[in-house]
Amino acid sequence: MSRTAVDSEGAWFEPGEMDALRRKLPIPYVDIVPVRTDVDGTIQQVGLLLRASGEGRIVRAIVSGRILVHETIREAITRHVEKDLGPMALPRIPVSPAPFTVAEYFPTPGQSLFTDDRQHAVSLAYIVPVDGECAPQEDALELTWYDVAELRQSSVLEEMEGGHDVIVRRALSFAGAL
Amino acid sequence: MSRTAVDSEGAWFEPGEMDALRRKLPIPYVDIVPVRTDVDGTIQQVGLLLRASGEGRIVRAIVSGRILVHETIREAITRHVEKDLGPMALPRIPVSPAPFTVAEYFPTPGQSLFTDDRQHAVSLAYIVPVDGECAPQEDALELTWYDVAELRQSSVLEEMEGGHDVIVRRALSFAGAL
Amino acid sequence: MSRTAVDSEGAWFEPGEMDALRRKLPIPYVDIVPVRTDVDGTIQQVGLLLRASGEGRIVRAIVSGRILVHETIREAITRHVEKDLGPMALPRIPVSPAPFTVAEYFPTPGQSLFTDDRQHAVSLAYIVPVDGECAPQEDALELTWYDVAELRQSSVLEEMEGGHDVIVRRALSFAGAL
Amino acid sequence: MSRTAVDSEGAWFEPGEMDALRRKLPIPYVDIVPVRTDVDGTIQQVGLLLRASGEGRIVRAIVSGRILVHETIREAITRHVEKDLGPMALPRIPVSPAPFTVAEYFPTPGQSLFTDDRQHAVSLAYIVPVDGECAPQEDALELTWYDVAELRQSSVLEEMEGGHDVIVRRALSFAGAL
Repeated sequence: MSRTAVDSEGAWFEPGEMDALRRKLPIPYVDIVPVRTDVDGTIQQVGLLLRASGEGRIVRAIVSGRILVHETIREAITRHVEKDLGPMALPRIPVSPAPFTVAEYFPTPGQSLFTDDRQHAVSLAYIVPVDGECAPQEDALELTWYDVAELRQSSVLEEMEGGHDVIVRRALSFAGAL
Repeated sequence: MSRTAVDSEGAWFEPGEMDALRRKLPIPYVDIVPVRTDVDGTIQQVGLLLRASGEGRIVRAIVSGRILVHETIREAITRHVEKDLGPMALPRIPVSPAPFTVAEYFPTPGQSLFTDDRQHAVSLAYIVPVDGECAPQEDALELTWYDVAELRQSSVLEEMEGGHDVIVRRALSFAGAL
Repeated sequence: MSRTAVDSEGAWFEPGEMDALRRKLPIPYVDIVPVRTDVDGTIQQVGLLLRASGEGRIVRAIVSGRILVHETIREAITRHVEKDLGPMALPRIPVSPAPFTVAEYFPTPGQSLFTDDRQHAVSLAYIVPVDGECAPQEDALELTWYDVAELRQSSVLEEMEGGHDVIVRRALSFAGAL
Repeated sequence: MSRTAVDSEGAWFEPGEMDALRRKLPIPYVDIVPVRTDVDGTIQQVGLLLRASGEGRIVRAIVSGRILVHETIREAITRHVEKDLGPMALPRIPVSPAPFTVAEYFPTPGQSLFTDDRQHAVSLAYIVPVDGECAPQEDALELTWYDVAELRQSSVLEEMEGGHDVIVRRALSFAGAL
């Protein structure tokens, strides 16, 4: 029934099959923190999506999604950026495959700082500067750019779920902005 | 039927089931380069296993294996080090979850520098200094420690398959030894 | 006439000479976050020194100091850990020379998140697990181990100066503990 | 007498003064590997300068230079890229201040993999993708772009001095290209 799954990730799973797989294996993911940078590489702004969570609440989120079988990490990053930010975002995919952090999502809260009801996901996190025009796609309602100073002081990060706030903080920390 | 799979990774897959899963999803792995270090952290030696490859050839290999569902990366590293190097190896698991590189193994040669007939694996690679006694376990025939200078000059790394030599070189490069 | 400078860094500078040099060149430093880790590499505790600041206030601090001419980074880390934590600390110097962050200290507040009245320092920051007995040396009054949970909630990090709190937070973030 | 030093690094040193300082303190540097990347972030080409070495030989080199007092690392990277590649290079300065490696240059060969007759330099190494037009400036005779495959097989890297070949190899290794 999940039209999104079919459209964005290919039609090769039967209904319910992916759910069954998620109980058997950890699922490789990419988490992407979209940023606007200054000409000297300093992060100026972080882009956060507004989207409906599984439970129907509206939450802030970063770009995130599965790595498909036979897909490279670079392809997965490109595909998810395009899926969420549109085809004109002009992302600068990192030169190194080494993520700045790895987020381990578990269904059971407390096993790590990251939770995901649906699955155990092992997510490689990357900072991706985008230079072009971003337009939220599909199930994202809105994309908002937040100044780094704003993120430090406001409660925006608390509107994130599953540990996405931790990933944004780690990204800013890694980038020397926090 | 694979006794090893049952013993080392739990008995919860039917025969053939894991093979089927491997065709559907990328499989999260850890690749571990065991090293002996000097008191100042310099890598002195790299430990390579001698094991029978799938095709019955004898190959040099690093420690490598799946992350199981509901298992943390730290648990997976610990389990695979113990499985291959024995319970007295005294590994020093890295403080950071960020791998020094990510190896993407594909069944089709040429899609990356890493190949694995059986599956598409996304492998997080870590350097793990070991301080204790190592004894090869299970299907590993032998563990040999090679001086860094030896690895630079000899053809030992060419006895590795699937790109394990690339991982060892990246590890030495990351550690400032190459 | 600074006895400390003579004792800890060699007697080859005339009085006042180092001060003059500090106005001419950025000074390479190492900043070291001493930690106690669990057997699986998770950071359990962070060690903070209590010392007299230049202005006579008592502050919390991490281990920090200059890289001397002709000294390797590994030697500098070893020397400063021994200077501040004593000869029995059994530090595990990182295998890689790549720091988890670089702190740029400037005399003028606001040019970065790090300040140092005396100089422009370019400091390479490392996490160093210590396994042995630590005893504060020389001008350090005390060494206290703080649980990670404690550091997250308490105001201990606010007792640090010059941006040392930022370095501790980045260390915990890099290590997946924050 | 050194016109270059005056032009590129400011006129505030007396003749001979910098030489004296170099004997007293390690000098903070940046080493920059300029690259052309594919749209997915993969390194396609590495840019190497042709320049006259101190001894009058012609050598291949990467972009490299001092961090000046009161200058940020980002400013130093920007300045040296502009100095060597021209004002239209459009460099993408990395988002993180953490270098992919640190090269320790010593006057005495053998203390590390890096040598510099003039000084002990502590050099932070960065990969910098450039999107614009590059034109060698000042003392650089030429800039040549080499395909990654070419660098793997040819002897170009052997025309580099002081360990610059090691830095290029570490850069490619970090970027997953080697």
